[in-house]
Amino acid sequence: MGAIYGKEFIDRLDRLNNEIWFDGERIEGKVSEHPAFKGIIQTKAALYDLQHRPDIKDEMTFISPLSGERVGMSYLQPKSKEELQQRRKMMEHWARHTGGIMGRSPDYLNTVLMSFGASASLLSGKEHCFPERLQAFYELAREQDLSITHTFITPQVNRSPFYMEKEGEPIAAKIIEENEEGIIIKGARLLATQGGLTDEVLVFSAGRFPFEEEETFAFSIPSNTKGLRFICRDTFIGGESSFDHPLSSQYEEMDSIVVFDNVLVPWERVFYYKNAEAAGNFSTLNSFQHFAKHQALVRQMIKGEFVLGTAELLVQTINVKEYQHIHDKMSEIIIGLETMRALIERSENEASLDEFGIMRPAIIPLKVAGSVFSKVYPRFMEIIQLIGASGMITLPTEKAFDSPIRKDLDRYLQGASKPAEERVKIFRLAWDLTMSAFGTRQTQYERYFFGDPVRLVGDLYQTYPKNDYVETVSNFLQLEKNKE
Amino acid sequence: MGAIYGKEFIDRLDRLNNEIWFDGERIEGKVSEHPAFKGIIQTKAALYDLQHRPDIKDEMTFISPLSGERVGMSYLQPKSKEELQQRRKMMEHWARHTGGIMGRSPDYLNTVLMSFGASASLLSGKEHCFPERLQAFYELAREQDLSITHTFITPQVNRSPFYMEKEGEPIAAKIIEENEEGIIIKGARLLATQGGLTDEVLVFSAGRFPFEEEETFAFSIPSNTKGLRFICRDTFIGGESSFDHPLSSQYEEMDSIVVFDNVLVPWERVFYYKNAEAAGNFSTLNSFQHFAKHQALVRQMIKGEFVLGTAELLVQTINVKEYQHIHDKMSEIIIGLETMRALIERSENEASLDEFGIMRPAIIPLKVAGSVFSKVYPRFMEIIQLIGASGMITLPTEKAFDSPIRKDLDRYLQGASKPAEERVKIFRLAWDLTMSAFGTRQTQYERYFFGDPVRLVGDLYQTYPKNDYVETVSNFLQLEKNKE
Amino acid sequence: MGAIYGKEFIDRLDRLNNEIWFDGERIEGKVSEHPAFKGIIQTKAALYDLQHRPDIKDEMTFISPLSGERVGMSYLQPKSKEELQQRRKMMEHWARHTGGIMGRSPDYLNTVLMSFGASASLLSGKEHCFPERLQAFYELAREQDLSITHTFITPQVNRSPFYMEKEGEPIAAKIIEENEEGIIIKGARLLATQGGLTDEVLVFSAGRFPFEEEETFAFSIPSNTKGLRFICRDTFIGGESSFDHPLSSQYEEMDSIVVFDNVLVPWERVFYYKNAEAAGNFSTLNSFQHFAKHQALVRQMIKGEFVLGTAELLVQTINVKEYQHIHDKMSEIIIGLETMRALIERSENEASLDEFGIMRPAIIPLKVAGSVFSKVYPRFMEIIQLIGASGMITLPTEKAFDSPIRKDLDRYLQGASKPAEERVKIFRLAWDLTMSAFGTRQTQYERYFFGDPVRLVGDLYQTYPKNDYVETVSNFLQLEKNKE
Amino acid sequence: MGAIYGKEFIDRLDRLNNEIWFDGERIEGKVSEHPAFKGIIQTKAALYDLQHRPDIKDEMTFISPLSGERVGMSYLQPKSKEELQQRRKMMEHWARHTGGIMGRSPDYLNTVLMSFGASASLLSGKEHCFPERLQAFYELAREQDLSITHTFITPQVNRSPFYMEKEGEPIAAKIIEENEEGIIIKGARLLATQGGLTDEVLVFSAGRFPFEEEETFAFSIPSNTKGLRFICRDTFIGGESSFDHPLSSQYEEMDSIVVFDNVLVPWERVFYYKNAEAAGNFSTLNSFQHFAKHQALVRQMIKGEFVLGTAELLVQTINVKEYQHIHDKMSEIIIGLETMRALIERSENEASLDEFGIMRPAIIPLKVAGSVFSKVYPRFMEIIQLIGASGMITLPTEKAFDSPIRKDLDRYLQGASKPAEERVKIFRLAWDLTMSAFGTRQTQYERYFFGDPVRLVGDLYQTYPKNDYVETVSNFLQLEKNKE
Repeated sequence: MGAIYGKEFIDRLDRLNNEIWFDGERIEGKVSEHPAFKGIIQTKAALYDLQHRPDIKDEMTFISPLSGERVGMSYLQPKSKEELQQRRKMMEHWARHTGGIMGRSPDYLNTVLMSFGASASLLSGKEHCFPERLQAFYELAREQDLSITHTFITPQVNRSPFYMEKEGEPIAAKIIEENEEGIIIKGARLLATQGGLTDEVLVFSAGRFPFEEEETFAFSIPSNTKGLRFICRDTFIGGESSFDHPLSSQYEEMDSIVVFDNVLVPWERVFYYKNAEAAGNFSTLNSFQHFAKHQALVRQMIKGEFVLGTAELLVQTINVKEYQHIHDKMSEIIIGLETMRALIERSENEASLDEFGIMRPAIIPLKVAGSVFSKVYPRFMEIIQLIGASGMITLPTEKAFDSPIRKDLDRYLQGASKPAEERVKIFRLAWDLTMSAFGTRQTQYERYFFGDPVRLVGDLYQTYPKNDYVETVSNFLQLEKNKE
Repeated sequence: MGAIYGKEFIDRLDRLNNEIWFDGERIEGKVSEHPAFKGIIQTKAALYDLQHRPDIKDEMTFISPLSGERVGMSYLQPKSKEELQQRRKMMEHWARHTGGIMGRSPDYLNTVLMSFGASASLLSGKEHCFPERLQAFYELAREQDLSITHTFITPQVNRSPFYMEKEGEPIAAKIIEENEEGIIIKGARLLATQGGLTDEVLVFSAGRFPFEEEETFAFSIPSNTKGLRFICRDTFIGGESSFDHPLSSQYEEMDSIVVFDNVLVPWERVFYYKNAEAAGNFSTLNSFQHFAKHQALVRQMIKGEFVLGTAELLVQTINVKEYQHIHDKMSEIIIGLETMRALIERSENEASLDEFGIMRPAIIPLKVAGSVFSKVYPRFMEIIQLIGASGMITLPTEKAFDSPIRKDLDRYLQGASKPAEERVKIFRLAWDLTMSAFGTRQTQYERYFFGDPVRLVGDLYQTYPKNDYVETVSNFLQLEKNKE
Repeated sequence: MGAIYGKEFIDRLDRLNNEIWFDGERIEGKVSEHPAFKGIIQTKAALYDLQHRPDIKDEMTFISPLSGERVGMSYLQPKSKEELQQRRKMMEHWARHTGGIMGRSPDYLNTVLMSFGASASLLSGKEHCFPERLQAFYELAREQDLSITHTFITPQVNRSPFYMEKEGEPIAAKIIEENEEGIIIKGARLLATQGGLTDEVLVFSAGRFPFEEEETFAFSIPSNTKGLRFICRDTFIGGESSFDHPLSSQYEEMDSIVVFDNVLVPWERVFYYKNAEAAGNFSTLNSFQHFAKHQALVRQMIKGEFVLGTAELLVQTINVKEYQHIHDKMSEIIIGLETMRALIERSENEASLDEFGIMRPAIIPLKVAGSVFSKVYPRFMEIIQLIGASGMITLPTEKAFDSPIRKDLDRYLQGASKPAEERVKIFRLAWDLTMSAFGTRQTQYERYFFGDPVRLVGDLYQTYPKNDYVETVSNFLQLEKNKE
Repeated sequence: MGAIYGKEFIDRLDRLNNEIWFDGERIEGKVSEHPAFKGIIQTKAALYDLQHRPDIKDEMTFISPLSGERVGMSYLQPKSKEELQQRRKMMEHWARHTGGIMGRSPDYLNTVLMSFGASASLLSGKEHCFPERLQAFYELAREQDLSITHTFITPQVNRSPFYMEKEGEPIAAKIIEENEEGIIIKGARLLATQGGLTDEVLVFSAGRFPFEEEETFAFSIPSNTKGLRFICRDTFIGGESSFDHPLSSQYEEMDSIVVFDNVLVPWERVFYYKNAEAAGNFSTLNSFQHFAKHQALVRQMIKGEFVLGTAELLVQTINVKEYQHIHDKMSEIIIGLETMRALIERSENEASLDEFGIMRPAIIPLKVAGSVFSKVYPRFMEIIQLIGASGMITLPTEKAFDSPIRKDLDRYLQGASKPAEERVKIFRLAWDLTMSAFGTRQTQYERYFFGDPVRLVGDLYQTYPKNDYVETVSNFLQLEKNKE
């Protein structure tokens, strides 16, 4: 089978008939035709089609060693820096297609699964661990080009550091039983982006160690598994018009709460369970972080390019390029973008082979880039608002341009270098990127993409190799040998 | 007649049948029943009713010296610090009613007109100036409790400092003719908030001096004057449910472009025209700035209280009050709020009588407070997003709570100190305040309320009395007498 | 006796012959003639003289109810808002004399002692507490115009939150014995500013509750008490020339470590000891915070004025007032200064009588102002550096102007509006304020004046009355009554 | 001759007997023994010696194609990326020797001259231009390992954008005459770092185009040329003890005003003059920027390492590594450092051959890195102050440790992981780096290293290739072809 076309993705999804709840109602009929989902499903389908575009198909796919079929490049387990760069090229193609705005293009989760598969042997010989099943699932996904989502945030009931969930009915998803067929899960996970809109849901332990034994598991199940329920948040689609809502009409991915209502996970899909030590070990040592961050950062870099293009288009439209404060603001975007680019490049240059023969990009530049983007992206959004000023508010609709008052709009909303309709298009894009409900959700998404920024900087500080520098200074001061 | 009730406001507005264009269509029928406008009109009506609430009516109105009727306190021309504080109390009542979120509660423009009236004699004896008409209109508005909007931004075609509009068809509104009946205006003004939703439109010269003679005028005309057209931007109402859209369903004020299609302004409504010197003089010396800033800042202070309450409610709901970074963030809001409060108080303590016997609040603390708020408000919004984190995204709708999955929501979305439904209400409020299209427009509005922040700081620096401090330091250094 | 002249201060100090160690040597002879101390001692003497300047002596002193003599206004226990403002006027006079740069002008500690005295009855009837001795000492100090320092920081050995000092030889000062004559103290306190340069040292428990019993005490002893040792840090005086070092030559106050080498504190000077509960209670409830913050903030406000004058003098000297980024920077200083002013004023307007009949300034505006200044002052310093640019480096000395190359300096270092010598004076002042070892110590001092900023914001958040605002929002959302 | 040892540098300098004025006196005798200069001269001598250290001499020197001697690697004109990296290695060696703190290690100006030489043919065939003399001087400097300074800032008399120097006696250095022997220069230049402490002074036109013809020239002359005078600023050396002043005692480089008192520049040293067009062309197109920025940024990166080591040593000494705000601050340093590293690496990876066969590092990442460092370095300095807190003030001297009170210091100033003497050493280093007059001059130096930050961001914005991104967004919006 191998790399699919968009149509197969859509058909497969419609056939699954997942239990999706939206605005108090269960979705009936083809999800791909539902107003809240059709935009994102079409966009995703276009990404799958891109795998077969003649001029880039060699960059988007590779020959499966198993089947000889062309499979998605995002499934490639890189053995060399060249293969790492091949992966990057593929990610750039996909990211460019949506201006980096689709947070969960297929490569994200394909990459996650690829990295899990590549480190499967970390689970070898450990109790309640089944590396071969993980490997098998990786191959299955690659050969069938399965679409996947994942979920790892537990409900935000109480974020006090001293909080412990009370006994009784689980809130966070837990193993409540195991039997011959598999393990039974009850409880919820928060915020599966595109939850219900993929073939599979990958679920695994994450967050703070140590895990509770009952919350320790990793598995993947079809989205239509019995008892699995996706409860959508409100939609952030502003409307169907791509003039009025150039981004949300196409890229609103939806997030959902995933409820496990006594869901049976069959044994062949259980990768590990109830072995907190092995799970912690796997979490810490696998290459998930390296590859997931690499994919996300490449997408964010492309998004930075899209942001810069948008900002410059605003500047040109209202002709503010002589102002010194505009130079300041535009330079901030340029500096942010170039910083991302350099750090990603460095992570690739400094990549090294792990014990499984996988070429992992260097982690420190990726961590740094992740911290950088989570800070600069919200600032980019603010800059666009500051450049656009009152123009971000004066937003007539497509229908207004199609009405008797068009001549007024043409006259009074013209830009220095653009006719009114184009000017409004440009400002609506700037608005949809930064000020619509869709845009602000994007900001929040990028801000927290890699986790709580407070914890991220703690991790960066603790894992950064500082000793050489301490030693240099100690020598300079002729201190007794540094003991810490 | 005197201070009106909400019902009179609504009836009068419906009767006017102003030419309002929304989404490509002209509004037909009662504007007060149109989905895009009914929320704000109801809210504004409630404000008018508040003038008659027995427990505060003495604080909301005063006895007109002309008619002996109770008229709105916002029309009071204060002669003493006590009257200044009476004005403040009235503004606080109105602001509290909407959490400071309605930017153009009636007191704003009433105050503007009050200040114009109070300085009318600045126009006495000057060519093309009619101070008595201005005074008469102030009295008319006060006695009939007219609702008013104004507009003073010219179209943002080209913001280059070197740009001059080309000859020919005007873009910015201009006098194109004067005749026996009055002056004829052609062109547009940008961004009249509540444009079309008021009895009158007040139009006057503003912005950079010197004015062009043809762009120099001040007048007020009924909103239904022939040739006057209000072209609305897209609406930012998210929906009718006050659960889902607690703010936008009630407070979306709409902004419109005001088109003057050969509008005749009758002479009795012309306050001045084609006298750039007199207009500049009037702009510079009247008390508009003092009173308009005073009103706006009081409202913003009340909004700051509402923001603080919302933020603290989030903190309590998810129980994050032990975190040091939360202390930091909450303290930022507290500091911002208290700073506003202290500056406003100081402007009142340092108020002084002007040449017309009006007690003007001191301008420097008001300018400072304006600069402060335009910076802290966007930061407040960011802080709320940072406290709410992923909770700002997981937003089910009212209908979801009214459906079979309510039990899941009740379980998985409960907060540390709140049931799920209340928790969702709280987060939806936080979202509507900071992340909805309504909320982000509010942010942009507050950021630019007093004008371009870049120009505001220039003005603050230039007008601030620095000489004493320079002298002190010069004396300390025993410099020759400071010559600058 | 009453309010002293500078000469008495100096004579008294020289007679004490305190044990002061500086740069490895014990000070011998008159401390007032030692190069490291004479500048500050002269400056302080001038402040004492100011108490008798005919035109302001009524503002600097009041008639002692005890002796009928004129005593320092800083000892006045205010019973009304008028008296609070009298105190403020006195503080402004003293602060202006040094541009607010002397951190420990006499009013600071006089105020501390005044507030302790005013709350002495909090200690009444409690074990190991002697309120009458505290009252007596307050009166003694007032009548004799004693100069005082205090010290309350324990050595910074290990700031880990988990650190506990080991048994054995004390590091932080502790009671190691009590006998008929008094209590015996061993250990050290850090950072007594002007330590050794005052008549008395006031020592009391501070910092985190609960106190250890052995670290719980409050007393004052003469600086020349046996076993009391002041170990100075390195001096930050740049040199004697007031041209070259306009600030450090006069205002370097010195900080010292205070060592208690088995120091006997006689009973009549012990205010409390070994009663952690009473001490904690006293700390929490007395008016120290109110009055100490009030004094410090008034001084800081005056310093803000001096900073603004200095910055503006730079701007004029090199004529950069047209630049927009200069407007930005100067406005930041103006905004900071005006914010301080408004908050201090508000603390006075909202003052209220405590249970002892003392008019305490409101604490919330003072806390806010303290947080504000600790942030804006370092930024002010940065702004001056940014305005001065390379001019902050090109600093010839007084002797260079007194040499054959003066003509070159006159030519090449002239400013737009100043001759070279004045220009250099101005830049040297800017440098001494912001970049000399003296200036940077000032920055650090202001940054930490009120304690660790991290803890300060925690305290502000926790003590700020937020409930009304939470209630308002809860009502708006029609939540069940807020339970927290 | 080739690469010299330190002794030759010193001897040559002492023989020159340059006219240096310091603190109102002309330096007599050996400058290398003068207290204000001996530290820096010794340090620089050690750098020259480093060229011959056996283990790295191949990295520090290369074989001259002209003489066959080993000459300094900083003179290498790179033809390949490998040679570019060789240059970098050499720069790292030199920078590490001083923790990146010596701003003008010899490689800086050697690099400048190398880049000028490499682009000499830009001057070919142009009036008043002598490329062969420039080439000859480059070779001379390389073969004799001349030490050089340069100067390009004109006096800061009046920085108004509208300022024009008045006729008459020149202030900024100008050509006042030309004759058979050469051109005669009168006027001054500001801020030659190490002015008077080098063999040669390189002078060329810089700053804003277009140049005045009389201010257009490039030449190099021996520092002891008649009429050439170096007027030093005040010294920032705190004292001779390397315990007390670990940095200033060794690294204070001095800055001086360079006065040209009718200085004759002989024709063979004139590279161009009075050809503003050619000079402008040369300035714009040569590789000065690429290589000078490359050198400076490598040094700054090494300095960033030194800063990180110092900060971490503080953290360990007082054991504050558990605090979340410490993680934040330390991460800021890490992020800044890694960003620099990645950008420099990228500039090398993207290097390309210019028309003269020279491998220029890519300019955009260098410009970005320059903007980054000028912002993060002052923040690094602030972070160190915030970590050190009161410990930055409590600074006893070396002599105090050598006195009877040492036992008190040992006890009360010990750190969590360090004895008192080491702790004080560490804090004194932190202080000398960030708070001494030496340290703050370093901050100012780094802040302005590449020029006025305001102008730098303008340049970055204007030269950055944005078109592709604008095109992408235009295509996304299906705009008419972008016309700007």
